[in-house]
Amino acid sequence: MTDETIDDIMEATYRALCTHGYADLTMQNIAEESTKSKGTLHYHFEGKQDLLESFLEYLLNRFEERTETIPGETPAERLHEFLEELLTPADEESAEEFRTAILEIKAQAPYNEVYREKLGAFDRALQARIATLVADGLEAGEFRPDIDPDETADFLVTLFHGAQTRAAAVDRPPERTRQYVHEYIDEILRADGATERDAATTDEDREAGE
Amino acid sequence: MTDETIDDIMEATYRALCTHGYADLTMQNIAEESTKSKGTLHYHFEGKQDLLESFLEYLLNRFEERTETIPGETPAERLHEFLEELLTPADEESAEEFRTAILEIKAQAPYNEVYREKLGAFDRALQARIATLVADGLEAGEFRPDIDPDETADFLVTLFHGAQTRAAAVDRPPERTRQYVHEYIDEILRADGATERDAATTDEDREAGE
Repeated sequence: MTDETIDDIMEATYRALCTHGYADLTMQNIAEESTKSKGTLHYHFEGKQDLLESFLEYLLNRFEERTETIPGETPAERLHEFLEELLTPADEESAEEFRTAILEIKAQAPYNEVYREKLGAFDRALQARIATLVADGLEAGEFRPDIDPDETADFLVTLFHGAQTRAAAVDRPPERTRQYVHEYIDEILRADGATERDAATTDEDREAGE
Repeated sequence: MTDETIDDIMEATYRALCTHGYADLTMQNIAEESTKSKGTLHYHFEGKQDLLESFLEYLLNRFEERTETIPGETPAERLHEFLEELLTPADEESAEEFRTAILEIKAQAPYNEVYREKLGAFDRALQARIATLVADGLEAGEFRPDIDPDETADFLVTLFHGAQTRAAAVDRPPERTRQYVHEYIDEILRADGATERDAATTDEDREAGE
């Protein structure tokens, strides 16, 4: 399969998921959104599940590409940017529909090992990226020295899942979580946060680390 | 319908959901877990969706009963207890299966107005209970005066959804979130938190409020 064919099919899958949701999605629906025929789709993929497994991998790759270089002069700025990117849908117009489709796939994961594996890979990739940004901030002395990068990342990934689920299930817009996350970085993580929490410890630890 | 009949059918629904999941669940499955016949079930409910709508309401009522009196001598202790109760499954053995079934129902909510309504009612009830506990803690001077009860509650409910989704979708046990939530109360909310964050402001504000 050429990269072009893959991109065409994956973009068609995105649109078909937004239009039909996960449960009712058929290969025919995807073919209708694609320049390829249903026959071509079946030539490359055994069926809907197989195609969606590749789609989850495609999403992960695309997210990794999209966030390969994160703008920002300091680790804290890059953490803000990364989480802003994560919590802002790539396509505002279809955001709701796509969030619903992804939630349906998450709810299928306990019954489908490959979905679970792909979603797990995304989860771990997210957590690792955030943990690295937090560790960079610690090293730069931007964050409080008692912050644990992995625990902080774990917490932020859980919050991200919560924002997505709540938006789909009970119509609660994720903007509030986005705002909360930025406040969390500035007020809880930053050594020079709005409140001078732990200022003494921070200075001591910085000196000890030098 | 007598209360006994309702309880019997609702408990049967719980067991059937854990065994069969949401998507494949049938009225027959529920009848098999119940002392009532499939005919009786159909007499009281139009079908699976109608029954599950009542089930969601039953869950909310049961949760409200279970948490009507929260043990604890201070609001902070009661907040710990309430969130512990929320994040601890009523039945450890079937916890995973039930979490999966609820996630499937959440993923159906965008397509089903009544599910969305019932889940929304649960969401709002949770948030209101937490906000009240936080407000009580503020009034008692236990929490930092710049805490907003509603925002704090909103954040904790989002985190709860995230813990549930992540546990079902990527096998990540919710214990870590439970631990995080307790730390959050003690270290971020409490005026006398582990670190003496804002101690000066707190004292000033307390005096001003007296």
